Amino acid sequence: MKRIKRVTIVGVGLIGGSIGLALRRRRKSIEVVGVGRRTASLRKAKRVGAVDQTTTDLAKGVGGSQLIVVCTPVDTIVETVRRIAPHATPGTLITDAGSTKAEIVSALDQDLGPGARFIGSHPLAGHHRAGPEHAQSDLFGGRTVVITPTRRSQAQDVQQLCDFWSLLGAQTVKMTAVEHDRAVAATSHVPHLLASALVAAMPEEYRALISTGWLDTTRIAAADPALWTHIFLSNRKSVLSNLKHVEANIARLRLALERGRTDQLETLLTKAKRSRDAVGS
Amino acid sequence: MKRIKRVTIVGVGLIGGSIGLALRRRRKSIEVVGVGRRTASLRKAKRVGAVDQTTTDLAKGVGGSQLIVVCTPVDTIVETVRRIAPHATPGTLITDAGSTKAEIVSALDQDLGPGARFIGSHPLAGHHRAGPEHAQSDLFGGRTVVITPTRRSQAQDVQQLCDFWSLLGAQTVKMTAVEHDRAVAATSHVPHLLASALVAAMPEEYRALISTGWLDTTRIAAADPALWTHIFLSNRKSVLSNLKHVEANIARLRLALERGRTDQLETLLTKAKRSRDAVGS
Repeated sequence: MKRIKRVTIVGVGLIGGSIGLALRRRRKSIEVVGVGRRTASLRKAKRVGAVDQTTTDLAKGVGGSQLIVVCTPVDTIVETVRRIAPHATPGTLITDAGSTKAEIVSALDQDLGPGARFIGSHPLAGHHRAGPEHAQSDLFGGRTVVITPTRRSQAQDVQQLCDFWSLLGAQTVKMTAVEHDRAVAATSHVPHLLASALVAAMPEEYRALISTGWLDTTRIAAADPALWTHIFLSNRKSVLSNLKHVEANIARLRLALERGRTDQLETLLTKAKRSRDAVGS
Repeated sequence: MKRIKRVTIVGVGLIGGSIGLALRRRRKSIEVVGVGRRTASLRKAKRVGAVDQTTTDLAKGVGGSQLIVVCTPVDTIVETVRRIAPHATPGTLITDAGSTKAEIVSALDQDLGPGARFIGSHPLAGHHRAGPEHAQSDLFGGRTVVITPTRRSQAQDVQQLCDFWSLLGAQTVKMTAVEHDRAVAATSHVPHLLASALVAAMPEEYRALISTGWLDTTRIAAADPALWTHIFLSNRKSVLSNLKHVEANIARLRLALERGRTDQLETLLTKAKRSRDAVGS
């Protein structure tokens, strides 16, 4: 991390803004540049203290930085990195914060020119509220960041990326992009689909009877629909595969209930409780 | 509430214990008697200050009380009320705290002898941890309690029951037992089934990638399996009916994803987000 003097964050929403805030709080010597398409968002990011400088000019924003973090929606990351690469100072490491990795990493795991090398990141942190105004300097504190290097990745780049996320308070885990996508289908994407399906089956007239169980179970359904549509499409295969298991589990519970099989129902619920207890609250 | 000098709580677990704690804190003049089968639980309840007196003798425990609250698991409430009724002082009001109402109310909405009258209650409060050691005096503060009177119910009994739950800090809502069961199928029981189905589809090796979304979505799967098996069976028809809707919604999301229909997927997620936003966090 010693050689990093300047970091560019492309896309200063909740994640980009929180990276900037955390970086400026924890390493004041690093200059943080925010790049975005909308000046309103850039102004907000500057106002909350997430960036030192801002620009809408991608080429101008990335030159001279030793690390570039692309925090745009998943469907725009590949294109953004390709546009950045020719303008990056030779040797610059580019990473992202996208919720899916296989599509992005396979598209970018190639020669990006002399200026830049890409390694994927996914910070497992977030909030169902978007925008730099919800940015938090401690968003990554104690959280896990998955890093997905490939055979082409250089050890010093991987180390630098680990050091970067550690500086923000996170712990890093390395795995392949494909492994990552399979795992987050189960831990994040399918739960999100189910939360949306639950909300849509809740008649308005029952709202008076909502309590903490429903609120907890459905909270993620309030996340940004456009953003999540692209996450689902980008991880389609793994999401559909895990969803198949979940649908089979639901059918198993339903059949036990239809048949009034107390023993089967209790066995299924007990298994689930044991797994859930093993994870903690 | 003026005429109440003694309240008996049958079953001093989380809910019964919390009622006792709240009652003793908010109206010190009322004597609280705890009745249970296991002396260990009764001792715990007394130790945490939830009851003044305890007994394992049902007949002894209910005599002389003006209100009896049955806080046993849903499958034992009907039988417990029937055993209590002959020993209750004439004019005693009996209520419960069961999560389902139709089965219980239809079984008890009849002549219970001169001693007792029954009106159903369901406090929408709880915790995934059971037992009197987790009891909280403010468990009902700001929460909703559903009361399910029938045509046979006397206005003064309904009023007394409302006053009782208000004393514990809750707000009361009146509806029929059948309406209640339909509503909680959607707001509580089906979300619980889905949480269990999700947990069971999460391979152990992915645990490192769990974040707040999964934890929130699956928290209720840690609740007591035996208790919930009886809740599901007691509300089978409404649970299966709502589950059918949820499964259809899941299939709709899955088809949109299978077909790569960005527009359909985003429309479904947007609808769900709007409904979720309307409820609050």
